[in-house]
Amino acid sequence: MRALRYHGAEDLRVEHDVPEPKCGEDQIKVKPAFVGICGTDLHEYYTPTFIPSKEAPHPVTGESMPVVIGHEFSGTVIKIGSKVTNKNVKVGDKVAVQPTVACFECGACQDGFINCCDKAGFVGLSGGGGGLSDAVCVGGDFVFKLPDHIDLDVGALVEPLAVAWHAVDASQVAEGDDALVLGAGPIGLGVIQCLKARGARYIIVAEVAKERQNFAKHFGATHIFDPRHEDVVAKAKELTGGRGPQIALDCAGVAASIKTACLAVRAQGRVVNVAIWEKEVPFHPNNLVFGEKKYSAVLGYQKKDYQAVIEALGKNTMKPEAMITSRIAIDRVVEDGFMPLINQKEKHVKILVDLSK
Amino acid sequence: MRALRYHGAEDLRVEHDVPEPKCGEDQIKVKPAFVGICGTDLHEYYTPTFIPSKEAPHPVTGESMPVVIGHEFSGTVIKIGSKVTNKNVKVGDKVAVQPTVACFECGACQDGFINCCDKAGFVGLSGGGGGLSDAVCVGGDFVFKLPDHIDLDVGALVEPLAVAWHAVDASQVAEGDDALVLGAGPIGLGVIQCLKARGARYIIVAEVAKERQNFAKHFGATHIFDPRHEDVVAKAKELTGGRGPQIALDCAGVAASIKTACLAVRAQGRVVNVAIWEKEVPFHPNNLVFGEKKYSAVLGYQKKDYQAVIEALGKNTMKPEAMITSRIAIDRVVEDGFMPLINQKEKHVKILVDLSK
Repeated sequence: MRALRYHGAEDLRVEHDVPEPKCGEDQIKVKPAFVGICGTDLHEYYTPTFIPSKEAPHPVTGESMPVVIGHEFSGTVIKIGSKVTNKNVKVGDKVAVQPTVACFECGACQDGFINCCDKAGFVGLSGGGGGLSDAVCVGGDFVFKLPDHIDLDVGALVEPLAVAWHAVDASQVAEGDDALVLGAGPIGLGVIQCLKARGARYIIVAEVAKERQNFAKHFGATHIFDPRHEDVVAKAKELTGGRGPQIALDCAGVAASIKTACLAVRAQGRVVNVAIWEKEVPFHPNNLVFGEKKYSAVLGYQKKDYQAVIEALGKNTMKPEAMITSRIAIDRVVEDGFMPLINQKEKHVKILVDLSK
Repeated sequence: MRALRYHGAEDLRVEHDVPEPKCGEDQIKVKPAFVGICGTDLHEYYTPTFIPSKEAPHPVTGESMPVVIGHEFSGTVIKIGSKVTNKNVKVGDKVAVQPTVACFECGACQDGFINCCDKAGFVGLSGGGGGLSDAVCVGGDFVFKLPDHIDLDVGALVEPLAVAWHAVDASQVAEGDDALVLGAGPIGLGVIQCLKARGARYIIVAEVAKERQNFAKHFGATHIFDPRHEDVVAKAKELTGGRGPQIALDCAGVAASIKTACLAVRAQGRVVNVAIWEKEVPFHPNNLVFGEKKYSAVLGYQKKDYQAVIEALGKNTMKPEAMITSRIAIDRVVEDGFMPLINQKEKHVKILVDLSK
């Protein structure tokens, strides 16, 4: 079959003779339709971190490079294994796939937090196939039927939206709460949409780039500030009767955003970190002490987040179509996908590979 | 009346002509018996931070130095104002006093978190009298009757134990949980006792000083490690089946303790910061991200913490007597109190001023 495989740093190859995977008894076989390119893919392109090397195969899949990439994908069900217990999907259904790889044995898995698995990985990074192929087989419980009126391109957005939903859920936002969102990249824009779907009142966004500010406004930000020119903490407090918002979500992951988030929220407020950090930053715990604030970190998603996003799409309380800023062909992933996302990153939110092209 | 007043840095005076406070209609007048010396008192002795200067009187009390000091105190009720609604105390009762000063008007106060008041202060630091005097008048709801078998010296320990109880409560410890405690100073030792009273299984303590290690053992630590010589994260994981404890309480407040706490707890684990920090420290949020860990900060206590500590003392599930390492006279507070706590700090936990001396 056709697949885009990662052979090493800066070495992606569209191959036409990759063996088609066999559908296990407890698996569902999906023909991918659209695949989103994610910041992780860009990072891996230059420096493999999640993608296992020959010397260190992935402890769950046992695979190493070359591996098929693409972990944000939708597709059509083409086969259902005989022992699959998920009765919500049938052959021919449009689906979104949760690409979680977990050991199901470690403490975190045993406690039900497979996103925190000691050996966590992703279909499309860690082996086990990936979205950028003609077929991929995944565990039966990781396939979610899309609502009838939701197209497969939007279905490829479920994965990043599930990251955002999981974070917003962790913030314990209540209807009418005010929220501060730091950074309006793809995940920040997802967070804005999830906050809106959850009934937040003010969605205050701190973002430097003009294009991203415009996207933020489109998706539901009520107030937008450029942190280079405005005091975001003061503005957020002013808007909320001097108290500060109940919650802040850090989708930027820099020293300034963690400080702003901690100082802006009110007493007993919650800061949720959604970013993955590149290095240590200076941090003053007293910014949480005075006000007894809570700082928590989230990672990935769980099944319930996929279900919630699909439910919101079904009810039209989230309309993420405008996140799709380009559709490209599988043989132009680097030129038309990775490069624009690196060199014109403010103009793009999500570039999808259209496998029918 | 007699009182020890703070006139400025390194200027404490026992005075015998301080006007006796009048008991307001909603106040209770207490004759202090024992007063604990706290780290904050030592800090204030050299550098007034909480104690208001003449230029900036405290926004709630309206007072500035000289102020009576002493905020950890027990005493005997000598008068009850006519409009006091607290029916749990009567004249002659042995009581502990919650020294909270709050505005009752800001957002935090309105939400019921008076410990997070924008203008928070303490009786014994911010004006409104203090424990190191012959009489002090406090709000009727801030006076708690001690159990009959609890002596007034132990009553002076209720305040620091309430700080510890509040922190342990915030950790959401459940019976049988394992906990890591960083630092076994007075608050860390209180935390150990509260964890024991709440039914923790392993109470793993990281502490450098030999004397404090011994105190920790006395009060219920099940495993004690010197972080200079042992890998506390590895030891804590080893003891807990490789997963790490559910909770960690940072009573040390240094870069190494926050890192150890975040790395040691299991997936979904909770780190509670009990320390007040002097400066920014290097912090890697990824230490929370991988495992979706939660970091929260606590400050002071609420009424429920006083009630819980007194209940635990009543049931003998906390026996803090051995925390009292010296009893001194009011006219020797600097020589016999502050100096030993600074120069021989490992030997002492709590030095009490005995006002009968």
